[in-house]
Amino acid sequence: MGSLTSPEIVRLFAGLAILLGAAMTLGELARRVRQPAIVGETLAGILLGPSVLGIISPSVFRTLFPQEGPGALALETFVTIAVVLLLFVAGLEMDLSAVSRYGRKAMVISLLGIVVPFSIGGAAAYVWPDALGMGTGADPLTFALFFATALAISALPVIAKTLMDLNLLRTDLGVLVMTGAMVNDLLGWLVFSVILSMMGTATHGHGPWFTVGLLLLVLVVVFAVIRPFVNRALPWVQGRLVWPGGVLSFVLVLVFAFSALTEMIGIHATLGAFLVGIAVGDSPHLRERTREILHYFVMHVFAPIFFAAIGLYADIAGHFNLRLVAFVLVLATLGKVAGGYAGARLGRLHGREALAIGFGLNARGAMGIILAILALQYRVIEQETFVALVIMSLVTSVLSGPIMDLLMARRRGVRITDLLSPQTFVPELAATTLRDAIRELQRIAAERTSRPIAEIEEAIRRHEALGGATIGNGIAIPHARLANLRSPVLVVGRSIAGLPCSTGDRTPIHLVFLLLTPREDSLVQLELLAEIAARFEDEEMRRAAMRANSFSEFLAELSVTAATMPRGHERA
Amino acid sequence: MGSLTSPEIVRLFAGLAILLGAAMTLGELARRVRQPAIVGETLAGILLGPSVLGIISPSVFRTLFPQEGPGALALETFVTIAVVLLLFVAGLEMDLSAVSRYGRKAMVISLLGIVVPFSIGGAAAYVWPDALGMGTGADPLTFALFFATALAISALPVIAKTLMDLNLLRTDLGVLVMTGAMVNDLLGWLVFSVILSMMGTATHGHGPWFTVGLLLLVLVVVFAVIRPFVNRALPWVQGRLVWPGGVLSFVLVLVFAFSALTEMIGIHATLGAFLVGIAVGDSPHLRERTREILHYFVMHVFAPIFFAAIGLYADIAGHFNLRLVAFVLVLATLGKVAGGYAGARLGRLHGREALAIGFGLNARGAMGIILAILALQYRVIEQETFVALVIMSLVTSVLSGPIMDLLMARRRGVRITDLLSPQTFVPELAATTLRDAIRELQRIAAERTSRPIAEIEEAIRRHEALGGATIGNGIAIPHARLANLRSPVLVVGRSIAGLPCSTGDRTPIHLVFLLLTPREDSLVQLELLAEIAARFEDEEMRRAAMRANSFSEFLAELSVTAATMPRGHERA
Repeated sequence: MGSLTSPEIVRLFAGLAILLGAAMTLGELARRVRQPAIVGETLAGILLGPSVLGIISPSVFRTLFPQEGPGALALETFVTIAVVLLLFVAGLEMDLSAVSRYGRKAMVISLLGIVVPFSIGGAAAYVWPDALGMGTGADPLTFALFFATALAISALPVIAKTLMDLNLLRTDLGVLVMTGAMVNDLLGWLVFSVILSMMGTATHGHGPWFTVGLLLLVLVVVFAVIRPFVNRALPWVQGRLVWPGGVLSFVLVLVFAFSALTEMIGIHATLGAFLVGIAVGDSPHLRERTREILHYFVMHVFAPIFFAAIGLYADIAGHFNLRLVAFVLVLATLGKVAGGYAGARLGRLHGREALAIGFGLNARGAMGIILAILALQYRVIEQETFVALVIMSLVTSVLSGPIMDLLMARRRGVRITDLLSPQTFVPELAATTLRDAIRELQRIAAERTSRPIAEIEEAIRRHEALGGATIGNGIAIPHARLANLRSPVLVVGRSIAGLPCSTGDRTPIHLVFLLLTPREDSLVQLELLAEIAARFEDEEMRRAAMRANSFSEFLAELSVTAATMPRGHERA
Repeated sequence: MGSLTSPEIVRLFAGLAILLGAAMTLGELARRVRQPAIVGETLAGILLGPSVLGIISPSVFRTLFPQEGPGALALETFVTIAVVLLLFVAGLEMDLSAVSRYGRKAMVISLLGIVVPFSIGGAAAYVWPDALGMGTGADPLTFALFFATALAISALPVIAKTLMDLNLLRTDLGVLVMTGAMVNDLLGWLVFSVILSMMGTATHGHGPWFTVGLLLLVLVVVFAVIRPFVNRALPWVQGRLVWPGGVLSFVLVLVFAFSALTEMIGIHATLGAFLVGIAVGDSPHLRERTREILHYFVMHVFAPIFFAAIGLYADIAGHFNLRLVAFVLVLATLGKVAGGYAGARLGRLHGREALAIGFGLNARGAMGIILAILALQYRVIEQETFVALVIMSLVTSVLSGPIMDLLMARRRGVRITDLLSPQTFVPELAATTLRDAIRELQRIAAERTSRPIAEIEEAIRRHEALGGATIGNGIAIPHARLANLRSPVLVVGRSIAGLPCSTGDRTPIHLVFLLLTPREDSLVQLELLAEIAARFEDEEMRRAAMRANSFSEFLAELSVTAATMPRGHERA
């Protein structure tokens, strides 16, 4: 102890706070415009890095993020541990059983989705190593293989998020894309390990085949020994050790041990963590709660800092080469979309769907960036290529959603939380009857939509005639469709005392949801009505809504119950 | 990037895996013998450190845990982040409102529990600085103040765990001890910060009062600005950002920022984290799930590695000075027990209870160890004193439970999970009637107790006459009390098909619990019966018990539902 001086400790924590704070803020902004969080997080690093802060105020930049010495090493340690944990969680979220379930079709898509971009990328890199920025002194074959892999890889979390936004995750198309991406990731990392082992040849003094042999041995050990061992050990650990803490310790011992092992045999620490993640995640005995603790802590503490730190290690602006960026982007997109399309057509999918699958697989996200930073570290690529690969990863991730959206002509699902605002929430209704309450909310709706209140009243009344507004449980949803409405409007009123109810159901009304939707879109009305009914069917939810002291708390309650993604694909 | 070479990365992860693995294993063993986990975790470090592994195989020790260079720095970074997170979670678990609830009595106990050991420790250290191992060149006053603080501090988590084991946590006595310990901790850390700031005087060039002023400013900022800010921001964060991930990022930004701030003004990073913990933990808006994720990840990944690493930084065996250890132990115990006793007597508690409170507060646990390592780092104390303080912290923690137990003459609560074993679990009963099933289980019970089966049959039959064995829900609990039985015996049989039930309740019986308890102890029978009934009242629990494929899984299910300590005081 005592090698880190007090000023270095100050810098370490200040650096972590600033990186995490900026990454969280920009990640959240990205999410607001329906983009993967990783885009904002990486951008935060670019702003804090040599490209922006380093130019505006080199001294502040250098003080906060020292480039050498113990301070730099301390931050690097954090980043190294972060990337290992990140790959572990990525492995945890793989579901290999889906591959076998979807059999041939998924395999064809996956394989073509890898082989085509891999071939295109590899050929281009082998033919034009200098134009594509091969690292000085790197082996051309190694470079070509790496470049091919960088183009062939996919980003599972980004893809999952996109599919979710498009309401496609549970469809056959969604599962096909997901499975394809999974196989992509797995093969991509294996190939990358082989490349690293080939590079290690010079240092370790063994032939490349020796390390490839070791890699195969690790695979056999992980899947034939560790996987069944974990599966048998988990119930024991969960029964005997404090729960869920004991499981966390146990799993992380495995992660650290295999990271050390794979790094030692000349592959990379991340591969060990990734494989342990797959082995552990595959066990039906791993409880949701353990998965959750790991997922959230890693994805919201380590991951944002890691992606922001990437910006620190490269002068993105200084090494930006438009031609190279464009070339890499076109090559990557061409290869992936062509491959995915061809595979999907072979699997008898329609043209538009097949193209959508191609663009779905095209997102490189976190995986592309991690691969690039490792390659830069191992000096396989030059800074310019690194920058091009990072930009390519981000751009393909950003584009994949909108393009699939366009191709599938599917509206993004609207949720009630998207429609709520402090202006359309009445925490305590003045009205004492349901009729008055609806009128109170209609006034607000009229303001929001800039429509005459009479039109809204009339529309609601006509709808009422078709069926009462109450749905039981103390909830009323007066609703109507209006012509030429741009987007749905939802006004919520709450009555703690309760409004007497005229219909058979004798429960007083506590919550009134006034819902106006565009006449042209019958689906959105049904979806929102269904969502309100489903959410407030839960008594706990209704009670929480009554307890909320402010709009923020009300929204928080709704967001909490909306957090139903246990495998946590909500971020990139 | 790239300052850490591949062999250093290997060592980092191997070191983490070994530290965590050993700490987990020995921590679990400590728990088995009803000792705080921290005892086992620290012991793991001593075994891996210079005292044991360093002597058995100096080269292995030096390879795994380099003492200098980038490898040492990397591990130190991890440990530095770990201790900050540890103090944050400690703060999170403080409940300041209890202090005001229990008012005067708690304050008297707290104050005397601090002032007496503080005075005794301070006086002793001021009179005999050399005998107590003052650091070379340290200021005698600083040393005396530090030593006084080390003796005055208490270990909240160890105390909470002990009280829980004794079933005292929810009693008035328990709350008094907890509150006393809380105030102890808070004041102790503040005093320690003042000491550090006084030491910093030389380096920073400001007067000590300047830093004390800054400390007060930090306190005001945390409690008057940050605390209400967090309280208002949390619902907003929970409503607007992805949940629960967004809250995690937000809270950790605060932790890192205040760690940097307090370290910068010459106090210590840990104090900032501790204060942020109190401010955040105090907010009623912080959800249980967020608290849980933070608690489990920090307490089962960072904490074990931190406590094990302590053993690496000091040659415990080499600096063991029996006289010093004994002196420190006696001084610490005398001061704390006398102070706690006096305070409790003033609060009108009985003699035995007052003494129990004194011994309860006597546990120093993690806090004592953290204080000692920081003092060693700042060279306030010599290695021998460090070792003595670590041993004193562990011994007082180990003794506090048994002595309170003895004084209160309270039996530790027995739980059904303590009684279950593969030998007393029948996953599928051969019997097809309840009567035969009971006979089947009686045979096993007879074997376990070495009693004639007739005696057990007779005892159960007599009890049955007093009331049926079934309690509804498909559960039967035939039970009896036997003379001269050493400890309770529980045999569990399961029937997937279900046994027809003779009594009014027409649900077939799926689980039969045969419970034998010592005749002399009527309480234990009632407690166990109540526990079985309460646990299996839950339908989810019953279904899980039916699903379990093995004894381990069955035990795992029971342990999971037993994990009902959301504030997670289950470890030290």
